[in-house]
Amino acid sequence: MRIVITGGAGFLGRKLAHALATGGGLAGAEGQRQQISEIVLVDTCEVKPDLVAGVNITSAAVDICDADAMARLMTPNTLCVYHLAAVVSGQAEADFDLGMKVNLDGTRALLDVCRAHAGPLKFITTSSVASFGGDMPRSVPDSFAQTPQNSYGAQKAISELLVNDYSRKGFIDGRVVRLPTIIIRPGKPNAAASSFVSAIFREPLQGQRAICPVNADLPVWVMSPRRAIECLIHAHEVPKTKLTNSRSITLPGLSVTIGEMISALKRAGGEEAVQRIDWAFDQTINDIVSRWPGAFEATRAQAMGFVADRNIDEIVQAFIEDDLTSA
Amino acid sequence: MRIVITGGAGFLGRKLAHALATGGGLAGAEGQRQQISEIVLVDTCEVKPDLVAGVNITSAAVDICDADAMARLMTPNTLCVYHLAAVVSGQAEADFDLGMKVNLDGTRALLDVCRAHAGPLKFITTSSVASFGGDMPRSVPDSFAQTPQNSYGAQKAISELLVNDYSRKGFIDGRVVRLPTIIIRPGKPNAAASSFVSAIFREPLQGQRAICPVNADLPVWVMSPRRAIECLIHAHEVPKTKLTNSRSITLPGLSVTIGEMISALKRAGGEEAVQRIDWAFDQTINDIVSRWPGAFEATRAQAMGFVADRNIDEIVQAFIEDDLTSA
Repeated sequence: MRIVITGGAGFLGRKLAHALATGGGLAGAEGQRQQISEIVLVDTCEVKPDLVAGVNITSAAVDICDADAMARLMTPNTLCVYHLAAVVSGQAEADFDLGMKVNLDGTRALLDVCRAHAGPLKFITTSSVASFGGDMPRSVPDSFAQTPQNSYGAQKAISELLVNDYSRKGFIDGRVVRLPTIIIRPGKPNAAASSFVSAIFREPLQGQRAICPVNADLPVWVMSPRRAIECLIHAHEVPKTKLTNSRSITLPGLSVTIGEMISALKRAGGEEAVQRIDWAFDQTINDIVSRWPGAFEATRAQAMGFVADRNIDEIVQAFIEDDLTSA
Repeated sequence: MRIVITGGAGFLGRKLAHALATGGGLAGAEGQRQQISEIVLVDTCEVKPDLVAGVNITSAAVDICDADAMARLMTPNTLCVYHLAAVVSGQAEADFDLGMKVNLDGTRALLDVCRAHAGPLKFITTSSVASFGGDMPRSVPDSFAQTPQNSYGAQKAISELLVNDYSRKGFIDGRVVRLPTIIIRPGKPNAAASSFVSAIFREPLQGQRAICPVNADLPVWVMSPRRAIECLIHAHEVPKTKLTNSRSITLPGLSVTIGEMISALKRAGGEEAVQRIDWAFDQTINDIVSRWPGAFEATRAQAMGFVADRNIDEIVQAFIEDDLTSA
């Protein structure tokens, strides 16, 4: 069977492809195991796929808003679509129309492509802590309203409503996981407002300097890439019967303050790593990130078998094992 | 100043126009009173406007998705837009694409027209109890998540997110009132799934038969047209400073069971009126309406000065005074 991954050039897309290619297949429509024979990484640019024996991983430089081109990728043997492509939070706030085009119109175009496919496709996509905002309790329950205070979050909340209604109508079999802030992202900083949360670990551990634009007491709801990939795969496997009334799932994360993260950095990289952080408060970034919830109850996800990281040190260790590149 | 009302041929649009034309003006951007000199009723068809001395009420047969035509209606002296046009719940469920086109694309097109207007326009629109669904407490608090179980509700929830983000960005000054089921609507039954809630009063009081497609114990969250018009006008007047974090307002209504409505019908029209109701359970209508909440807390709206009807008898009396036509 074929799997299509949008945002396939991103680090989550590539890690997901690798995990799917080396894993034990996915559940088919009637619950039977399906072997994965092809994975297509869709992105705005070509990506050089990892080689995995027995699985044909290819790259397609296709605009997700191009319905015809996307439809051609959905061959009859397509089992599911992982829709990870997005304009990230900082960029969507700076360029409203671009965010609307990719995060809203692109998602809707893709949903319509899936709807036109013979038989309802599984459609797994991501929402975000950024879809919450305003007055919130310290720990946000599953039934709490999404009142996003940034355009990225609004576009994600809208996409959730679309996935839910398309699923209710039987056009797709959709699942939305609301991701915590994923740390520690490998590679370079990006335009996400939360980019610094990875950078304050990654750069110091790689011998480079990093800027921390918020105060040490800010709590952030985080998850490691390892757990995020497990959750994305588990989201495919959860039986439809457990998703009554809502296809949106707030994933269980860890609530960790920036100060606690710095302590973990010290345990992993010593005082010299901590000294590589420059504290430079940034009002714009703080205004976005401090309005996201610092903790969620995530009761429903835990009952479905989604699993959080155990502690911040485990997250740091996973980065060192999987992604650390020497300076 | 000019007021533009979409859905201007509908009964709420016409009542709103009359109330605005005969009222004391509206608050301007800096709080000063503004006299209303022109009201444009936009709808798919021409409508014969009421005559009110001193106010030029005109009709425009314009598709709200036609951005150029809508932009031409937004003259420099336009104070606000009341966006009431919608494909109703039963129709949006039966014709998914039509609902998406009018309720989502139409609203977004109109928001973009307002965004292009010089200076942020006030934009008042309606959402609905239909935007809630799934597992809910008996009385739904303001902070409760919208998980609509019908396409109309999903499109309304999405429109709320758009109005909120366009307002946060300063493109418009938007306000969304979540209307209870409005009873007693004058005229003919329509394609709203809740149409019967008006019909079980209106038809018997006019000497005609009506069908009740749900059970007597179903609670419905209702409001009279009089209070709805007051709330639509008050939504314009509420200072922006009271709308921090959310432009969406769940209006205060009355929670009344169908059985309690029948008792009120008996008090107003006697046993003979009650005998004009045919009980014919309709699974499709029941599935939609019984999944809407029967009560809301509406704490925030009450703090802002929005007012509910006092009791069901007052609602029936208002219908008799304002809208009853003899058989």
